[in-house]
Amino acid sequence: MKKYQKEDEISYSIGAFPTIELIHHQKEHIANILLSSKLEAGHEIFRILKSEDLPFEVNDRAIEKLSDKENVYVIGLFDKYVSKLSDEDHVVLVNPSNMGNIGTIMRTMLGFGLTNLAIIKPGADIFDPKVIRASMGAIFQMKIRYYDSFAEYRKEFPEHALYPFMLQSAHYLDETKFSSGHCSLVFGPEASGLDNEYLGIGEAVKIRQSALIDSFNLPISVSVACYEFARQKKLAEK
Amino acid sequence: MKKYQKEDEISYSIGAFPTIELIHHQKEHIANILLSSKLEAGHEIFRILKSEDLPFEVNDRAIEKLSDKENVYVIGLFDKYVSKLSDEDHVVLVNPSNMGNIGTIMRTMLGFGLTNLAIIKPGADIFDPKVIRASMGAIFQMKIRYYDSFAEYRKEFPEHALYPFMLQSAHYLDETKFSSGHCSLVFGPEASGLDNEYLGIGEAVKIRQSALIDSFNLPISVSVACYEFARQKKLAEK
Repeated sequence: MKKYQKEDEISYSIGAFPTIELIHHQKEHIANILLSSKLEAGHEIFRILKSEDLPFEVNDRAIEKLSDKENVYVIGLFDKYVSKLSDEDHVVLVNPSNMGNIGTIMRTMLGFGLTNLAIIKPGADIFDPKVIRASMGAIFQMKIRYYDSFAEYRKEFPEHALYPFMLQSAHYLDETKFSSGHCSLVFGPEASGLDNEYLGIGEAVKIRQSALIDSFNLPISVSVACYEFARQKKLAEK
Repeated sequence: MKKYQKEDEISYSIGAFPTIELIHHQKEHIANILLSSKLEAGHEIFRILKSEDLPFEVNDRAIEKLSDKENVYVIGLFDKYVSKLSDEDHVVLVNPSNMGNIGTIMRTMLGFGLTNLAIIKPGADIFDPKVIRASMGAIFQMKIRYYDSFAEYRKEFPEHALYPFMLQSAHYLDETKFSSGHCSLVFGPEASGLDNEYLGIGEAVKIRQSALIDSFNLPISVSVACYEFARQKKLAEK
């Protein structure tokens, strides 16, 4: 048992909450569930493991090795899987690098009823345990796919209305009327944002902000965009 | 020179960007500016230090001691100060504990034109360098004040229309019409949110979300609330 590396075919969720999400939504990919000997006998995970007929083992040493934090009692090992985006609304992250940000974005998207995430390479590894932890298990309810380029993504979904979010735009989010068809909300890398090329695709949008800061950080921008989008399309009500 | 502790009367900003914010907005509280010997002679900080007539010293040892990260070339030492909230719109954080969250919230508030933050004790130390870093120096443009209780805050601003954000509310943010007078957007602690008592003050609000997650995290909730608030009150246009 060794710590996760990008090349590994197996990854893991750390903690009871994300592991329960893993069991509920990606059961077929589970390789093993590790439990701490300190786990209370009445913990709900025992009931779930039994009713789902899942493999598990008590292994304090492996848990200690895989988790940096103390007080970890449950780890879910799973085979990494590939998913296919469905023909719904998408969020597209171009070259995201911060794992905590990506996890936070997943959880927020899910909260606004958006379940499809495209990542344009290079981008951080979504199956890194840091992403899974920051997503609080939201990752297991989402369809996520990597693309080698934005053009490759576009080729698969040529009909989506594109909304690149960029400071260079002259159009404000609070004045944008999103298409009633399928849409893609597109965001650039943390440090630099989308480059000018993206001004030429779809309808570029910016979030209205004061001059007191340079820009909002990526998870904040995505969240505000998803809120406005969900508000207009009434996604969270479904 | 030792690492920051809560009891200290001096704190510091780590990095050139937040230190320049410190100089621009809280110059009178600066105690000293520490520079790395590795800093390029053409760096804009030299021009600013000269034109503002500020004290500085080259001290690699102190920089190394105060910063955990590598590649830190500038640290700004300042005397901690107390500010008074102004009679404008406020954000109120009840018992916030995560320093990264508080810094992110400051930066986001500022982006939406909100510059007054009340913190109800117990709450994390806003002058901890972790908060300053997460705020990217936004803290130096804000008025921030601690209160022993919500009642004490309320006593100072009895006229503000109160909007506690809580999942227990039956009213959605996207259907809320904020008062044209001064408003306070109130948020609970990260783990538990506001307790039921707050349902009885002002107009409790919740952010519409899908059933796929428990709740949005605190910085996301505050950001979405500030966006909707600023959109209605046209704050960021000022």
